[in-house]
Amino acid sequence: MAHTDNVYKLIELTGTSSNSIEEAVNNAFTRASKTVRNMRWFEVIETRGAIEDGKVAQWQVTIKVGFTMDD
Amino acid sequence: MAHTDNVYKLIELTGTSSNSIEEAVNNAFTRASKTVRNMRWFEVIETRGAIEDGKVAQWQVTIKVGFTMDD
Amino acid sequence: MAHTDNVYKLIELTGTSSNSIEEAVNNAFTRASKTVRNMRWFEVIETRGAIEDGKVAQWQVTIKVGFTMDD
Amino acid sequence: MAHTDNVYKLIELTGTSSNSIEEAVNNAFTRASKTVRNMRWFEVIETRGAIEDGKVAQWQVTIKVGFTMDD
Amino acid sequence: MAHTDNVYKLIELTGTSSNSIEEAVNNAFTRASKTVRNMRWFEVIETRGAIEDGKVAQWQVTIKVGFTMDD
Amino acid sequence: MAHTDNVYKLIELTGTSSNSIEEAVNNAFTRASKTVRNMRWFEVIETRGAIEDGKVAQWQVTIKVGFTMDD
Amino acid sequence: MAHTDNVYKLIELTGTSSNSIEEAVNNAFTRASKTVRNMRWFEVIETRGAIEDGKVAQWQVTIKVGFTMDD
Amino acid sequence: MAHTDNVYKLIELTGTSSNSIEEAVNNAFTRASKTVRNMRWFEVIETRGAIEDGKVAQWQVTIKVGFTMDD
Amino acid sequence: MAHTDNVYKLIELTGTSSNSIEEAVNNAFTRASKTVRNMRWFEVIETRGAIEDGKVAQWQVTIKVGFTMDD
Amino acid sequence: MAHTDNVYKLIELTGTSSNSIEEAVNNAFTRASKTVRNMRWFEVIETRGAIEDGKVAQWQVTIKVGFTMDD
Amino acid sequence: MAHTDNVYKLIELTGTSSNSIEEAVNNAFTRASKTVRNMRWFEVIETRGAIEDGKVAQWQVTIKVGFTMDD
Amino acid sequence: MAHTDNVYKLIELTGTSSNSIEEAVNNAFTRASKTVRNMRWFEVIETRGAIEDGKVAQWQVTIKVGFTMDD
Repeated sequence: MAHTDNVYKLIELTGTSSNSIEEAVNNAFTRASKTVRNMRWFEVIETRGAIEDGKVAQWQVTIKVGFTMDD
Repeated sequence: MAHTDNVYKLIELTGTSSNSIEEAVNNAFTRASKTVRNMRWFEVIETRGAIEDGKVAQWQVTIKVGFTMDD
Repeated sequence: MAHTDNVYKLIELTGTSSNSIEEAVNNAFTRASKTVRNMRWFEVIETRGAIEDGKVAQWQVTIKVGFTMDD
Repeated sequence: MAHTDNVYKLIELTGTSSNSIEEAVNNAFTRASKTVRNMRWFEVIETRGAIEDGKVAQWQVTIKVGFTMDD
Repeated sequence: MAHTDNVYKLIELTGTSSNSIEEAVNNAFTRASKTVRNMRWFEVIETRGAIEDGKVAQWQVTIKVGFTMDD
Repeated sequence: MAHTDNVYKLIELTGTSSNSIEEAVNNAFTRASKTVRNMRWFEVIETRGAIEDGKVAQWQVTIKVGFTMDD
Repeated sequence: MAHTDNVYKLIELTGTSSNSIEEAVNNAFTRASKTVRNMRWFEVIETRGAIEDGKVAQWQVTIKVGFTMDD
Repeated sequence: MAHTDNVYKLIELTGTSSNSIEEAVNNAFTRASKTVRNMRWFEVIETRGAIEDGKVAQWQVTIKVGFTMDD
Repeated sequence: MAHTDNVYKLIELTGTSSNSIEEAVNNAFTRASKTVRNMRWFEVIETRGAIEDGKVAQWQVTIKVGFTMDD
Repeated sequence: MAHTDNVYKLIELTGTSSNSIEEAVNNAFTRASKTVRNMRWFEVIETRGAIEDGKVAQWQVTIKVGFTMDD
Repeated sequence: MAHTDNVYKLIELTGTSSNSIEEAVNNAFTRASKTVRNMRWFEVIETRGAIEDGKVAQWQVTIKVGFTMDD
Repeated sequence: MAHTDNVYKLIELTGTSSNSIEEAVNNAFTRASKTVRNMRWFEVIETRGAIEDGKVAQWQVTIKVGFTMDD
């Protein structure tokens, strides 16, 4: 398998969810895919959240996303 | 919206759960809310765990928690 | 309780799952337990993933695992 | 207070000022607000500067800025 | 000068100010000195803030503070 | 020499090459210069790669690039 | 062996000693055990010291200590 | 394209070369491929070297290498 | 503009001031410029301080400074 | 002195001792030398421990060890 | 107690010893005090070593040392 | 082989080159060897550069260099 010498751009997004880390990440992609094409991989950078009434009210997960730059 | 110049204290807790990272974090808040009021936000610092019989027996998630200092 | 002066070896594994971070970690242990005995604890080092059609196609979780070296 | 599951984008800017760290950060926002709406929070990533005649000639402060992605 | 083998405790605080980093740090000490005695030194851990109308609305400076534990 | 209080934006790119780290970085600039003007400096963030047949098949170098924001 | 879903609190202490790193850490525990019960594990965070007459006058070792929160 | 839930093991190697960083990395793979199959990707962890007669005598490049664990 | 292949040396200094972070940095340059020529740029490495009577008594700012080595 | 272009493998071990950091490291080598030949250098990665009755019950020192891969 | 606005310079040294970490640090100060006056504090940056015959042959401890710059 | 308990000093240099990372490092040594004797090893700390006309105009590689302190 030959590797094409692609160039990728990386952006950072924070997705949020009241349920889980996984859902917060997927929410970020759902929103970003409206304007960004060709997203390939991601890395979780930071996991934070808001607390209300003594429990997690919102997961806030920051990810770095790589996507192919079109020619 | 005006910002009040609050002062916050941050503490570190390790919550544990045999099921999931999210539950381990919520367990930490359930216990901490008995003595700490006004918890506002948290950040996941470290995710570790114990292994038994070749699978995760316990998730151990360390979080930093910020709460408002009362006047 | 007396502590035995055990020596532990640490290895790094990347487990994958299309469903969740927790399942990716458990998949790593299921495979590793075929050849590694006495796994005791782990630490999550990195959480990455692959994106397809604007959502997470695969969680890729890298863990450091400690196991007792037999005498 | 209910949390809306917003998605945020983060960008990095370097603001500069011959006077202070605070002014360098505000200069970055003055410029960025011409094209970026809904900036919410920032984090200082790096503080550097240029030296001339044995004193600070320019503060160069790099910040990460989070803003809400419009629906 | 002989060194006494003191033991110190370190706590983390986030001070806030609409004006400057220095004022945010001092605000943290003003509040903390109501209940903590013998604060000796501090280290800036993180500098964040809130943005409103395209400028810094609040500096949020997290510090680690060391104080002597009384005998 | 007077310093102009410019504001810079930083973006992250991953350039690739089958030959060398230097070529991977230059490939990133060749592609990015089609749409980004005024690129001034860069910093190497991460050097990774793909392996095939027991040798490096592709260098993947992630860089942070600073460019002047036009007035 | 079943794991109880304990919650742990972590605090930071700086112990000091003119003799050794190990003694500095133990001095921290001797003082802390007057008020903190159920200390379980620690991690060395930073090793610093004071110099006098060209030799170490005091070791200053900062540790993070985890203890079980009572129910 | 479906993702198989493979498990990967990661090992660290230090390759050396008197000529270049790239050659040091390839030397590591040449040696490792005698005993390790299915190496897929790598990450450069550290670049060090030895100096003799005021120039680089040896590049020492430490890499983390991921390979598929066979079923 | 052609780049000359200069070589730079970097040193670390801690400047102090009872007033501000900016003044602490400038105090370091005032002192260093007595013996070091051609200082070009700096980076803030650490911001610490001393506390007295519940407020900052001294800012202690550690910087890394780059200067051109003369031919 | 000519440098041979050796390739080294690095492994991580945690040695333990009730007495000192140095002894914990040597215990790791005593055990590892039963199966690993040609160990050359090490680096301390992490120093942790267990606490019992208000003093250190066990030092747990994690090291990265480099050894020559035989031809 | 008034704080004098001293300026400090920081240098890095690696001390070595076949016996202990503490002795390696003190050996560095014994050598450095021949040419450097007014050393005040240090911080341990890295602890490495050489292995021979399956045990530690030499501790190599790198420290950052701060000393007052004379007026 | 007996280890002599040498003491090493570490300095930081930034070498530059329009051609490659390796040449930038060697340029630093060529210049430094005019005044520093007994340089033994180095570690690459940071790789940055300047961009002109959409390609790398200058590689700027910062290294930490260790050399033996003479008796």
